[in-house]
Amino acid sequence: MTTLIKNGRVVTAVDDYLADVFIDGEIVTLIGRDLNVQADKTIDATGKLVIPGGIDPHVHMELPFGGTVSSDDFKTGTIAAAFGGTTSIIDFAIQYKGTTFQQTIDDWHTKAAGKCAIDYSYHLAVTEYRPDQDKEIAKIIDQGVTTFKLFLAYPGVFMVDDATMFRVMRSAGEAGGLTLVHAENGDAIQLKIAELLAAGKTEPKYHAQSRPVVMQADGTARALRVAEFAKAPVFIVHVSCEASMREIVRSRDAGNPAYGETCTQYLFLDDSYYDRPNFEGAKYVFTPPLVGRENIEPLWTGLKLGYLQEVSTDHCPFHFKGQKELGRGNFNKIPNGGPGVEDRLAMVYHGSVIERGFSLQKFVDITSTASAKMFGMFPKKGTIAVGSDADIVIFDPQKEQTRSAKTHHSNCDYSLFEGMKIKGVVETVLSRGKTIIENGQYTGTAGDGQFLKRGPCATA
Amino acid sequence: MTTLIKNGRVVTAVDDYLADVFIDGEIVTLIGRDLNVQADKTIDATGKLVIPGGIDPHVHMELPFGGTVSSDDFKTGTIAAAFGGTTSIIDFAIQYKGTTFQQTIDDWHTKAAGKCAIDYSYHLAVTEYRPDQDKEIAKIIDQGVTTFKLFLAYPGVFMVDDATMFRVMRSAGEAGGLTLVHAENGDAIQLKIAELLAAGKTEPKYHAQSRPVVMQADGTARALRVAEFAKAPVFIVHVSCEASMREIVRSRDAGNPAYGETCTQYLFLDDSYYDRPNFEGAKYVFTPPLVGRENIEPLWTGLKLGYLQEVSTDHCPFHFKGQKELGRGNFNKIPNGGPGVEDRLAMVYHGSVIERGFSLQKFVDITSTASAKMFGMFPKKGTIAVGSDADIVIFDPQKEQTRSAKTHHSNCDYSLFEGMKIKGVVETVLSRGKTIIENGQYTGTAGDGQFLKRGPCATA
Amino acid sequence: MTTLIKNGRVVTAVDDYLADVFIDGEIVTLIGRDLNVQADKTIDATGKLVIPGGIDPHVHMELPFGGTVSSDDFKTGTIAAAFGGTTSIIDFAIQYKGTTFQQTIDDWHTKAAGKCAIDYSYHLAVTEYRPDQDKEIAKIIDQGVTTFKLFLAYPGVFMVDDATMFRVMRSAGEAGGLTLVHAENGDAIQLKIAELLAAGKTEPKYHAQSRPVVMQADGTARALRVAEFAKAPVFIVHVSCEASMREIVRSRDAGNPAYGETCTQYLFLDDSYYDRPNFEGAKYVFTPPLVGRENIEPLWTGLKLGYLQEVSTDHCPFHFKGQKELGRGNFNKIPNGGPGVEDRLAMVYHGSVIERGFSLQKFVDITSTASAKMFGMFPKKGTIAVGSDADIVIFDPQKEQTRSAKTHHSNCDYSLFEGMKIKGVVETVLSRGKTIIENGQYTGTAGDGQFLKRGPCATA
Amino acid sequence: MTTLIKNGRVVTAVDDYLADVFIDGEIVTLIGRDLNVQADKTIDATGKLVIPGGIDPHVHMELPFGGTVSSDDFKTGTIAAAFGGTTSIIDFAIQYKGTTFQQTIDDWHTKAAGKCAIDYSYHLAVTEYRPDQDKEIAKIIDQGVTTFKLFLAYPGVFMVDDATMFRVMRSAGEAGGLTLVHAENGDAIQLKIAELLAAGKTEPKYHAQSRPVVMQADGTARALRVAEFAKAPVFIVHVSCEASMREIVRSRDAGNPAYGETCTQYLFLDDSYYDRPNFEGAKYVFTPPLVGRENIEPLWTGLKLGYLQEVSTDHCPFHFKGQKELGRGNFNKIPNGGPGVEDRLAMVYHGSVIERGFSLQKFVDITSTASAKMFGMFPKKGTIAVGSDADIVIFDPQKEQTRSAKTHHSNCDYSLFEGMKIKGVVETVLSRGKTIIENGQYTGTAGDGQFLKRGPCATA
Repeated sequence: MTTLIKNGRVVTAVDDYLADVFIDGEIVTLIGRDLNVQADKTIDATGKLVIPGGIDPHVHMELPFGGTVSSDDFKTGTIAAAFGGTTSIIDFAIQYKGTTFQQTIDDWHTKAAGKCAIDYSYHLAVTEYRPDQDKEIAKIIDQGVTTFKLFLAYPGVFMVDDATMFRVMRSAGEAGGLTLVHAENGDAIQLKIAELLAAGKTEPKYHAQSRPVVMQADGTARALRVAEFAKAPVFIVHVSCEASMREIVRSRDAGNPAYGETCTQYLFLDDSYYDRPNFEGAKYVFTPPLVGRENIEPLWTGLKLGYLQEVSTDHCPFHFKGQKELGRGNFNKIPNGGPGVEDRLAMVYHGSVIERGFSLQKFVDITSTASAKMFGMFPKKGTIAVGSDADIVIFDPQKEQTRSAKTHHSNCDYSLFEGMKIKGVVETVLSRGKTIIENGQYTGTAGDGQFLKRGPCATA
Repeated sequence: MTTLIKNGRVVTAVDDYLADVFIDGEIVTLIGRDLNVQADKTIDATGKLVIPGGIDPHVHMELPFGGTVSSDDFKTGTIAAAFGGTTSIIDFAIQYKGTTFQQTIDDWHTKAAGKCAIDYSYHLAVTEYRPDQDKEIAKIIDQGVTTFKLFLAYPGVFMVDDATMFRVMRSAGEAGGLTLVHAENGDAIQLKIAELLAAGKTEPKYHAQSRPVVMQADGTARALRVAEFAKAPVFIVHVSCEASMREIVRSRDAGNPAYGETCTQYLFLDDSYYDRPNFEGAKYVFTPPLVGRENIEPLWTGLKLGYLQEVSTDHCPFHFKGQKELGRGNFNKIPNGGPGVEDRLAMVYHGSVIERGFSLQKFVDITSTASAKMFGMFPKKGTIAVGSDADIVIFDPQKEQTRSAKTHHSNCDYSLFEGMKIKGVVETVLSRGKTIIENGQYTGTAGDGQFLKRGPCATA
Repeated sequence: MTTLIKNGRVVTAVDDYLADVFIDGEIVTLIGRDLNVQADKTIDATGKLVIPGGIDPHVHMELPFGGTVSSDDFKTGTIAAAFGGTTSIIDFAIQYKGTTFQQTIDDWHTKAAGKCAIDYSYHLAVTEYRPDQDKEIAKIIDQGVTTFKLFLAYPGVFMVDDATMFRVMRSAGEAGGLTLVHAENGDAIQLKIAELLAAGKTEPKYHAQSRPVVMQADGTARALRVAEFAKAPVFIVHVSCEASMREIVRSRDAGNPAYGETCTQYLFLDDSYYDRPNFEGAKYVFTPPLVGRENIEPLWTGLKLGYLQEVSTDHCPFHFKGQKELGRGNFNKIPNGGPGVEDRLAMVYHGSVIERGFSLQKFVDITSTASAKMFGMFPKKGTIAVGSDADIVIFDPQKEQTRSAKTHHSNCDYSLFEGMKIKGVVETVLSRGKTIIENGQYTGTAGDGQFLKRGPCATA
Repeated sequence: MTTLIKNGRVVTAVDDYLADVFIDGEIVTLIGRDLNVQADKTIDATGKLVIPGGIDPHVHMELPFGGTVSSDDFKTGTIAAAFGGTTSIIDFAIQYKGTTFQQTIDDWHTKAAGKCAIDYSYHLAVTEYRPDQDKEIAKIIDQGVTTFKLFLAYPGVFMVDDATMFRVMRSAGEAGGLTLVHAENGDAIQLKIAELLAAGKTEPKYHAQSRPVVMQADGTARALRVAEFAKAPVFIVHVSCEASMREIVRSRDAGNPAYGETCTQYLFLDDSYYDRPNFEGAKYVFTPPLVGRENIEPLWTGLKLGYLQEVSTDHCPFHFKGQKELGRGNFNKIPNGGPGVEDRLAMVYHGSVIERGFSLQKFVDITSTASAKMFGMFPKKGTIAVGSDADIVIFDPQKEQTRSAKTHHSNCDYSLFEGMKIKGVVETVLSRGKTIIENGQYTGTAGDGQFLKRGPCATA
């Protein structure tokens, strides 16, 4: 099967040119002006951007959490992603205590296999690191899972202590891996939650009060310094505040391989959403919480200047009805998370290119290329170049749309961005050469998406 | 009993003038030019500085540690302090697990009572904070112990978790108290110690490698941010590196009541001392360790600019013979600590006034007044003013001396500053009006020193 | 003549105690509890603060400016100062081009002599530094004028170039003097003024637009770095924005003798005052202008932490009627300056102690002691100590008042702080032992105030 | 004429892939795997890097300076550049007072036309900006000269005042141009030079003492803040110290379009070179001077993190014999400048990729792509993409070489990097499709290089 994309404006994280792109099977094999070749399928991209498929390196499909399960499974979630122009996701395979890393990965393979519309991988979330697991890290890396996640939040459930953090960071680093950290001060937050609830402060807004910016900055600073002590690379996930971003910059300035991401929701929403009536604030209960509006421009600036590497979603949807409602009367029982895998690409395009004058190339970088490099998927993913996977989005940069749960494909009864009018629409999506979104329809088959073996992280 | 100090140059943290000082009993009652009063005793201070007695807010007398006991008891230690021009100390009453705060204070009263040459107080080192102790903090403050100490080092022994830190800081703060923190990342350090020892790296220098600056900065940043979360004042003890000092400045700049001290040894010595042969490096094994020389000038600058409040000693001597030697073959068994209570005043005079051009007033501030205010002893202590305790040092600013274990009075067989030639000599010392050091002799009586009830901390 | 102040609460920049203060002639000679001495005059200070007389190191009396003359002469201005609790001022003797430094000082002596209610001195404002003046700086310092002022604003009138700035700073520094800088980018501002006027933007608010914060920060950074190059001390006058303060901190952190002040008006007012109708915005036309409100708390914090040394007024009043009105239709013709010498002490007390919990000692420091030290007047001025001048204010810390032009004594038809209700009232004022304000009356005689010979600056 | 580059490893600022590159005339028209096309010339690039031709945006060919002329003319200089893998240069057309911008550009066209081996452009160095020139800026931009240079050094010759700087920055910015600044404090430096010479301090090392880092930081801070006031983009040329780089970061962090470059020499050499005997220090006399070694790693880190955009050379060679020697006995008469246009690409490869582990992409970015974007040459220059000029370097990443004046092609009798052994060799160079360097020979013709019309700067 061959495909020819004609007359598009090809934009990568560095380039911007008019050309035809020829795909042979799953791979881009030829790029040229007015290509005179035969193809089984030809797509006219005149007036459109031809960009690398989006990469969302932070999602949670069918995740058991707080007695319920996140509402997108690997099938609905990856179809939603595809509609949103995302052609690779990285989920988190979470170790249950007493299990091996291998079992954890195997469990996630079982969950994902045969269901996905797009390629997928996992970060391994380590919740326990027994001495007998010392050799497992290298073994897991050999299988293409090169990134490890630690929680400094949720004591008693996922949280690890600083010695474990040191050990995982060092072991991963020595084996060519990278450690991701959910960085908050779990112990102090846990105490505050208990106190708030004991004081009858149970509404969603107290979720935000229980974990203020200063505790996020604290976890971040700690993760970075333990990484410095361990001489290991570190990546801070879902940074929502300027203070944490500044800590990353401080560490990287000093020569350390320290990185971070933010998420779509932190770039548009602020903590005033918790005041919405009728328990609607619960829709925005995720961790870290939305913070003060004064953080939003610094986060965008940070993306522009490379202080943060990319934008993910932390997609982890729960229906408002029946799921979020579990936390009526106790904000701590609200399942943590929100939808977003489908919104990311277009929302970031609008916020960066349209509203803030980012270059198209920077837009591509923060939604695709930087993640491909950081998480060991480049150049297979994250670019349009000869030899790369034909994961391609044809994007209409002028067309307008309104984000809404009514029209999204995620299995979630609300949208974080409900009613927002934005410019830019994902039109056609190819995953490894196969057209999976076209004319507003999903044209793929469950299981098109394959497990993606990743290599070591690569940065400047 | 009345005493008249004639013709001295009176220097306080702000003033510098020639006057006579008249003491009635324990109190300064009159200051004037050419006082025409009768006195039981007259001291001629012509050509000398008349300064407030030094305050050392960080000492450990007869402290059980690592299977031995620090070699100065409250008697020898306070006599040594008096020789060094220090007229008040604050020791640390350390809670043993399962005991109450009251028991802890009572134990320390038992140890100190009737022995001291100078006035003394304790900080209460909290190692456990059970719910039933919630009301004890206010009770202890009522007894004049207004400061609480927490360790973020020594896991399993003294270290508290972040939730306990939050609770103590807040409880203390609400009751008018102040929390002091030994700020390092205990868990990561503990792991490193075990690994170094397992690798056969047992010499004293590995003590420093096991707890690098980055782990001190980490503990400091964490303590400061948990204090911000708890809306409570915090004081970082024994800061030895610029990075930690910078964290304090960051927090205070943002409007938080965050403070800190350094110690004499960090102002003169660096980590090259660990390379001394014949196990002599063990003399410098204390925590935090000596660090790179590039930290020394910033610490002095920090004192000058008020980034750090005062200079203490962390006096906790162990003989080299028989005590430090317990750690031959295992740096972690070297009793942690060193002598210094006697060296501080003159060493700081030399380093600040003589070598760096500090004003005399600033010298008085960082050795006496700032501690008196910070730890609730002012204006009883820390100044020469009408109504204040007559804790006074007559100091010869020109005379030279050489610091040495041969001539010091501390019960310790070595000096951290052995052989250093400095300018400035403590000549005469009065404690609450009684002359206790004169003509090179101790002229007091065990038990002259009284327990000092302290009030809330007072800063700008 | 002897005076006894009984039962007051004596507060200095470090002390706070109850005592009687005895004054023999011009000097404090005795401080004690329940002094049993005879005195020609006794003042009961029960319940009152007894504090060092205020020092205002930045005033302009009878200054010719823009075709008019500032409305307070040395007589009315110093009486106003006295009512406000200020017992020393430093005016600026401004060199006219072609004249010598000596002539400049002599001119100012002629203006001030025999008129002043309180002691006075001058900074020498250098507007031209010819090679033949190289030796004049030391000569002027010998006469007790130890501080030199440079303008980086007002090109063509007062502004000096960077080479002149370097030469003055170095010459002054080598001779034990200190250079003060009015720090803005005069050239760029001049251009902007011309452009605004050409565009018909003539209202008072355009004064602020013509000299934004960024141009103040620029002048400040330049003055500091040229001082670093010249290895000379520098003092930035009338800092109105956080950015400039940060530059001072940066330079001082690096070990340089860099200092600064702010003024009362910048601590209370912001640039919204320029929007006042009926040309009232002109009342607030001074340089640098009022800036955004976000600067106010950082300036107070900077005073508390020692980032700025003291609060002056830049007192340079012009009547609204007849003087400020000269600039109707052209903001650049509004005489620059405002009243304030009388407001400072009580306004700062209210803003620091009452509103922000500063210690009384810090209040004394920033209104008196720090200036005395910085500008070579200590310990003659700036403290209450044996041997010091009896410049003393008896201050009622509880009584309330409302600031108003109706009740002030400055020869100016408006007040910058009109209608502000504050706590704290200056009750009685002594200048070198003579009571000059008592029961709301001025009880002194023109010429009581003497020229004050100053020495080198002294800081920590 | 068509050319096919076979089997190379194509590296751009983002990509890295194996492919064949087909060039039709001057343009890359096809990129693919195993291209099955006919070509007039085929180059085998197996095992080699195929990278965009280098861009050196800061050179001075045949520049009259200090009574002599820089020793490379547009012919020898561009041939040297070509040997070094640089395929575009930007020279500085310097306005002589009294002339128009147009005359200046025309003069430079006269000098360069018909001589160049590679494409060339100019920045317009404005030394005078008369009101009648207001419209000339847009006219010059229309001609493809979109960048303007200002000197804050060399008073009386090139230096402009701050009002001129403001006007040029704003005019350029409004017309889509960018202003470059040589940022030092010219006035203070001028004074220092005169003083050093008067004191008999005439050796080359006093050049460095006359213009220390603090004066570079000062000029930089001023240029940035005036640009902020003018709301215009600004680019600081030849940053040699960390302090200046920090100022750029501060301004850009605050949202301003502020950028900068460093030069090869500052990345390898330090101020100890001035101590070389026999007047050899004169070889390193350029402005700003070499500075302390502690600046070198921060500059590399700044390149890696995007704090500085690119590496240029400030190539401005003078022979040691006969030219540099003009300054024997007076460092101020040493012609300022050094060779380097030929050394840059390989030196930076070695320093970044080999010595510091930079990615190949980052190396391409800082030597080519970033300049192409910043200076309006992209995508014609700075990348290998369909539609771009075929300016291509075939680079052997493994081969070693020694830099030396014996083997370089610049008309200069010394090399700044004499004897340095580095990895990486420029092998073949194509300029707009024509092979101009091959097998160690220059195969082009004078005049191959064309004037390059540039557009507006483009950054993230």
